[in-house]
Amino acid sequence: MSSLTKLSLEPYKGTRDFYPEEQFVQNYIFDVWRKTAESYGYLEYDSSILEETDLYRAKSGEEIVNEQTYSFVDRGGRDVTIRPEMTPTVARMVARKRKELTFPLRWFSIPNLWRYERPQRGRLREHWQLNCDLFGVEAIDADVEIISLAYDIMKAFGAKDETFEIRVNSRKILNWIFDSVLKLNEEKKHKLSKLIDKMNKMPHSEFMVAAEEIAGDSAKIMEKILSVKTIEELKSFGDFPASLDEVENIILQLKKKGIINARLEPSLMRGFDYYTGTVFEMFDINPKNPRALFGGGRYDDLVGIFGVEKVTGIGFGWGDVTTRDFLETYNLLPEYKPPVELYICHLDGFMEQANQLASDLRKQGINTASDITNRKVTAQVKTADRQKIPYVLVIGEEEIKSQQFKLKNFKTSKETTVSKNDLANLIKEHT
Amino acid sequence: MSSLTKLSLEPYKGTRDFYPEEQFVQNYIFDVWRKTAESYGYLEYDSSILEETDLYRAKSGEEIVNEQTYSFVDRGGRDVTIRPEMTPTVARMVARKRKELTFPLRWFSIPNLWRYERPQRGRLREHWQLNCDLFGVEAIDADVEIISLAYDIMKAFGAKDETFEIRVNSRKILNWIFDSVLKLNEEKKHKLSKLIDKMNKMPHSEFMVAAEEIAGDSAKIMEKILSVKTIEELKSFGDFPASLDEVENIILQLKKKGIINARLEPSLMRGFDYYTGTVFEMFDINPKNPRALFGGGRYDDLVGIFGVEKVTGIGFGWGDVTTRDFLETYNLLPEYKPPVELYICHLDGFMEQANQLASDLRKQGINTASDITNRKVTAQVKTADRQKIPYVLVIGEEEIKSQQFKLKNFKTSKETTVSKNDLANLIKEHT
Repeated sequence: MSSLTKLSLEPYKGTRDFYPEEQFVQNYIFDVWRKTAESYGYLEYDSSILEETDLYRAKSGEEIVNEQTYSFVDRGGRDVTIRPEMTPTVARMVARKRKELTFPLRWFSIPNLWRYERPQRGRLREHWQLNCDLFGVEAIDADVEIISLAYDIMKAFGAKDETFEIRVNSRKILNWIFDSVLKLNEEKKHKLSKLIDKMNKMPHSEFMVAAEEIAGDSAKIMEKILSVKTIEELKSFGDFPASLDEVENIILQLKKKGIINARLEPSLMRGFDYYTGTVFEMFDINPKNPRALFGGGRYDDLVGIFGVEKVTGIGFGWGDVTTRDFLETYNLLPEYKPPVELYICHLDGFMEQANQLASDLRKQGINTASDITNRKVTAQVKTADRQKIPYVLVIGEEEIKSQQFKLKNFKTSKETTVSKNDLANLIKEHT
Repeated sequence: MSSLTKLSLEPYKGTRDFYPEEQFVQNYIFDVWRKTAESYGYLEYDSSILEETDLYRAKSGEEIVNEQTYSFVDRGGRDVTIRPEMTPTVARMVARKRKELTFPLRWFSIPNLWRYERPQRGRLREHWQLNCDLFGVEAIDADVEIISLAYDIMKAFGAKDETFEIRVNSRKILNWIFDSVLKLNEEKKHKLSKLIDKMNKMPHSEFMVAAEEIAGDSAKIMEKILSVKTIEELKSFGDFPASLDEVENIILQLKKKGIINARLEPSLMRGFDYYTGTVFEMFDINPKNPRALFGGGRYDDLVGIFGVEKVTGIGFGWGDVTTRDFLETYNLLPEYKPPVELYICHLDGFMEQANQLASDLRKQGINTASDITNRKVTAQVKTADRQKIPYVLVIGEEEIKSQQFKLKNFKTSKETTVSKNDLANLIKEHT
């Protein structure tokens, strides 16, 4: 074993070490995600973190594959990529078992995803993401359900309605704006799409200069149309096909279900090339967190690209990094509590008895650690306290003779004398 | 979006798609791991899947970095590797917060790990692994605890004692054999170590030819000494230092705790360069599964390599692929049960009421999906049955008027008429 002197202690740039207290928060976020998704009948799936790069070339958009992926050639000559997003994988999986699966299909996953970018608030190179997808329902009932599910997750986190808003749009509306109102050719349409997707990340004046470069005088009309808040206003810009009322209907259905903070946002693009209809995202009102917590949309043509019969789909992704920022901003983070309930210390010569008691209590469902050092009792007890374990007891000759134990609760500093048989029940009652 | 015609439907070679029924098994394995580790007071941690390649160069051994890792250069010129194992990461994390952490430290993690190798039974390119580690205790009490924890996981999976054995050895015993009995130089010692590590993967005669090439006549003595089963027998080969009784004491302590299937195995190496003392592994008795389910050892010098004060450590890794094979072989796999308990179908025009009831039941803790298609009721019910959801009910005019619902249990084919208020309780009672 070679011993390098300059071995780094830090995790790789743009990633995180999760020490137990951080992992606790991570598990809390995952639990809320998982429980809420399961309450709607969504089933968990997963796949490999590596996919062949072609999968993303075909689906995610050129920018992502050319600039942001972790791609490399494996030892066997295959061009592979660490997944930058989960949708291409889930579409591949649905296509792979197209004939065996029963639709409508409700699936979720909590993958870790990779993007090569400059680490900054709300954005890291590795993040985890809840993905919820509903396949096989073309009607807006699916859109309403998937947005309701996302909303219910916000409520499960304890978020108040006034702290966030749900922005809804449709690629069909954007296409109508580009084709029928602004009458752009394909090239200008593409460039303007990319620009609009970055609108909120640049000063408005800078955005307008770039927009005029692409679309000339039409940029001013675009500025106006992108700032409207209702379908009614949109209609004043031209001949609006009835089929584009979908977004209005979705917002109406959501209101009926008590979700009052959803609204039309005509400038909402969402980056991926594969969206075909509804797109949506959740925005934190607080300017400290200028990123979407979740976002998604409809991708009715994605599964079909694999050469199987078409399956419509809609889904969203929800990142852990922005979620943690949100919970922190609104003081919604849970208080750390280790899974271990009791720490058993021992006087000199009683380690075996401590281990035996720990083993007995585990069988009764109490998560128990015993101190297996030969340090002084005070040092042993201090370990329990520093590790935030709620209960501690010490075993010595007296305890073994009487089979009575002094159970100390660190929070209340109260000590209760209790028989061996009652230990488990007393701890269960209080934790 | 370019539409490639030959897009693969398969996951990347040597990896798996986890469809919900497979993910269910995966979650079962993770749950047993997590619950048992937590019952001993182990705390969950995690880190990034990418580390700088130097970390493994320094720690895992040359063979792994040169032949088996997924290494590449990132867009910023950093040489990085997808983690092939977790121990270097956990040692880095402990070193990083050496002064803030309180010892003894009990930690676990369930990372996915990557090795570039030929996929075969029990070995894939990506697998998940439970890692349990105990830092800061030099005495064998730590070794006994960590092996007991692994044993308790076997019992939690429902494994019978006669289906597996725990093999224990020590690098110190191997060093004594190489140095004092066989009197080998460093080069021969190294070569022989690598050969012994592969002993069980080749015919014995082939092994002996290779051993004689390295060690000459000593190979015959080695053959004899590697086949002994007790420390007592080892002592007949030379002057055996008392400090090497550790392994015997560990096996004795395990017996006292009722773990009777642990025994000395002098040929046990475990591949990693960083082990310093006890090494152990669990072997399935069944010849169909010729791989260790878990294995680990002591690495008392690993944390110190980062330039911080020494911290002793012992731990094991436990893979999901071999575990699944084991559970399958012994018929211990759990029966699939989706998390969703009820599927609500509707007659034409009653979808909104179906959604409303689903929403109400979710608030009462019942995981409920509602059918949001306009298919015939029989098709809706069939979806629930095929997705193995235990309960189904249909909403129509009659049910809305009477507020009485016919709850059907697919398993028993029994239908119970129940009021809206009693629905949740009835389902809770039976699932």
